[in-house]
Amino acid sequence: MTYCVGLKLKAGLVLLSDTRTNAGIDNIGRFRKMFVFEDPGERVVALMTAGNLGITQGVVTKIEATVKRSLVDSDIESVMTCETLYRAAQLVGEAMHEVQARDRARIESQGAAADATVILAGQRRGGEMRLFQIYSAGNFIEATDDTPFLQIGEHKYGKPILDRVIRPDTPLDDAIKAALVSMDSTLRSNLSVGMPLDLLVIKADHCRASFSQRIEQDHREFRQISDSWANALREAFHGLPTIRL
Amino acid sequence: MTYCVGLKLKAGLVLLSDTRTNAGIDNIGRFRKMFVFEDPGERVVALMTAGNLGITQGVVTKIEATVKRSLVDSDIESVMTCETLYRAAQLVGEAMHEVQARDRARIESQGAAADATVILAGQRRGGEMRLFQIYSAGNFIEATDDTPFLQIGEHKYGKPILDRVIRPDTPLDDAIKAALVSMDSTLRSNLSVGMPLDLLVIKADHCRASFSQRIEQDHREFRQISDSWANALREAFHGLPTIRL
Repeated sequence: MTYCVGLKLKAGLVLLSDTRTNAGIDNIGRFRKMFVFEDPGERVVALMTAGNLGITQGVVTKIEATVKRSLVDSDIESVMTCETLYRAAQLVGEAMHEVQARDRARIESQGAAADATVILAGQRRGGEMRLFQIYSAGNFIEATDDTPFLQIGEHKYGKPILDRVIRPDTPLDDAIKAALVSMDSTLRSNLSVGMPLDLLVIKADHCRASFSQRIEQDHREFRQISDSWANALREAFHGLPTIRL
Repeated sequence: MTYCVGLKLKAGLVLLSDTRTNAGIDNIGRFRKMFVFEDPGERVVALMTAGNLGITQGVVTKIEATVKRSLVDSDIESVMTCETLYRAAQLVGEAMHEVQARDRARIESQGAAADATVILAGQRRGGEMRLFQIYSAGNFIEATDDTPFLQIGEHKYGKPILDRVIRPDTPLDDAIKAALVSMDSTLRSNLSVGMPLDLLVIKADHCRASFSQRIEQDHREFRQISDSWANALREAFHGLPTIRL
């Protein structure tokens, strides 16, 4: 499995993904699940993927190939040249639909699962920040102020902390902490999600990758957050009132 | 869905279940999912159930009927008269197998899910405390010191706190708090789990229900734990180190 989370705050977008893949518990791999397309100051589009790796690699390959062609041929529409980010989500949905149409029946006939989901986040100059989740069928939803985050993959372990702290006006550094705590809870409880992590921050109206980092096992600040959170939870827990029997 | 959790500590057993059932999101019900059989000082056996409600009610009805008959006919073996708690888990597994054999194909032909799981916890005089999880196929596993808790239903939201604080030597009042915090996280993040709750504590070697309570929405101590936990999490969160961009 996978865990990826995207947060859309007034201050910007925060994306965090893990890198573990597994085909059965005895076949573990490490694959980047975050892909960034950038024309700094003009447009930034980031994708995160979950689900069948062959399917998601097929989708990303299609998107990448079309972006490359669109840079030399203005008749070609890609996520970097299309009019809006909404249209970019549609293009990812169309790529997903094509790959599913090609591969799904064959995958399922082998007893494997072909489902896949993609988070698309970004902004173009003059547009709003957008955060979408594209499903296997190619349809998609968008994050709003009521629900300013989207998760794909193993989303349940890390949802409670996001439910508690993420609001549209959460500052970026708090949002990064919340994403890391959400990932930390998932890493501790589910072996199918694993280090290293990829973190991307896109500040509002900068239309570029403002901050991007691979977080390895020994990353000092992530370890600090993980350890501080563990200690703080233990303290918080022991401070709770007791139910008298 | 459902969330039930059973903890096996050196000091005793702690069981907690919700009461929400749903057949689709527009058909919500309230059903007790915890069932206790007790011959105080001699034996206590508690069941908690998750999954298809028709299946689990079928299983519990069979177990209850057999217990009643076994009290007047010593030739009949029930969870209250069988030699060991291991055998009691087998009897629940056999009841599950019978109900699945009777109903599963028909349920699945309607496109519904027939899966169900049962947690069995208890102790007989002279025996050890035991905590089992019985699956749809009638097979089962037992909690051990390495993994002193079992969860059924919507288990993911509430697992991180249990992973962090539950050890075999956790005292009973801490274990109760942990179970309630685990349930509180699940209630906040998943509508298919709902109040009221049923809490049962079986102290080691007492072989009786030491403490049993229905916890309604307005239960003062549960509200205190829920609110204190929310505040403590927020404080803990804001005390985390910041990752500098």
